[in-house]
Amino acid sequence: MALIRSVFQDELDSVSQSLVDLTSMVAESIDKATTAILTTDLKLAEEVIAADSNIDSLQHELESRIIDIMARQQPVASDLRALVTALRMSADLERMGDLSHHVAKIARLRHPGDAIPLELHPMFQSMGTAAQKIAHKTGVVISTRNTEMALEVERDDDEMDKLHRQLIGSILEPNWKHGVESAIDLTLLGRYYERFADHAVSVSRRVYFLVTGTYA
Amino acid sequence: MALIRSVFQDELDSVSQSLVDLTSMVAESIDKATTAILTTDLKLAEEVIAADSNIDSLQHELESRIIDIMARQQPVASDLRALVTALRMSADLERMGDLSHHVAKIARLRHPGDAIPLELHPMFQSMGTAAQKIAHKTGVVISTRNTEMALEVERDDDEMDKLHRQLIGSILEPNWKHGVESAIDLTLLGRYYERFADHAVSVSRRVYFLVTGTYA
Repeated sequence: MALIRSVFQDELDSVSQSLVDLTSMVAESIDKATTAILTTDLKLAEEVIAADSNIDSLQHELESRIIDIMARQQPVASDLRALVTALRMSADLERMGDLSHHVAKIARLRHPGDAIPLELHPMFQSMGTAAQKIAHKTGVVISTRNTEMALEVERDDDEMDKLHRQLIGSILEPNWKHGVESAIDLTLLGRYYERFADHAVSVSRRVYFLVTGTYA
Repeated sequence: MALIRSVFQDELDSVSQSLVDLTSMVAESIDKATTAILTTDLKLAEEVIAADSNIDSLQHELESRIIDIMARQQPVASDLRALVTALRMSADLERMGDLSHHVAKIARLRHPGDAIPLELHPMFQSMGTAAQKIAHKTGVVISTRNTEMALEVERDDDEMDKLHRQLIGSILEPNWKHGVESAIDLTLLGRYYERFADHAVSVSRRVYFLVTGTYA
């Protein structure tokens, strides 16, 4: 029995490690997508677009592994809940990869043009940095189960929401001179970064709930 | 054993019924949200916003029930897979409710104004009708496991994508006279309807996979 429990524990650890790997992958993808769009780097945009299938593959493999563990180990109570939560977290992380991919696709669509007006570059740089930081921190939350840091992710998301509001405010300024196409691109881009951060918050909240049994 | 199997089968049926109930709720919410925004009906918009918590509650209750069934019945193979899939479908359906809620929030934000320029009303009427139809059909797919109809949902989604492209095309016309704020609203609204349909497709694909063991 001790041996079985230990094998099971190893399996749970490996699930957790795969989730952390996914956070690294999506942190890298949003960072590269941001650089690609800010430097109109088509090659980098293509790289982000291609790499999304690696994220999808790891997520599918992880989901199959979780279902296999459930079938073999027949977990109950907190172990079952941890596995179900891991399934949900993997879906959030996969979606974060999709959102990076969407950013890169706008970079590709507008290449060799610049999808982002020059005066908004610093704002998108901040959104990219915030998104990468939040994805990275979410990985640390998963691996350490640090509930303080899970709460920090919520605060980082408030920062992202603030940047998002500033972005919409800039587009709505009476002297907006970049036209409607640019407004559409920027609205979608803003939404992608905002949703990226929302999914990270969702993952951190799930860890918080697993550890404490309550919602923050 | 026959008795236990029968109890389990009843439980699976009840999970399936709750998923169908969720499809009815989100079909109703997107229909009402569309009417609210097209008729600048604040009361109806508030109703959709308030009703989202009913959708969330049913989804949470359903998730707890699924986890409880897993713990008690210790399903393997196809039964386990059906329950894990039900968890994912419930998440898709809950998200569809969120998207209706987002549409209703734009109706509320712009009230007593009309968020949608008059000439685009027919297009949004079509998007609303398509979204409601797709949600309803997804419910039938869940309850009947009709794979032909699951494929129809994909085609209905192609129709939604076409409407979405037409919408973006209209905003980009050189004679666009509704300004940037309207362009932002319509970009977001278009995205909400498109994502609503995407989640319905995701649910139908999961049913297709459960029945056939392959992806369409």
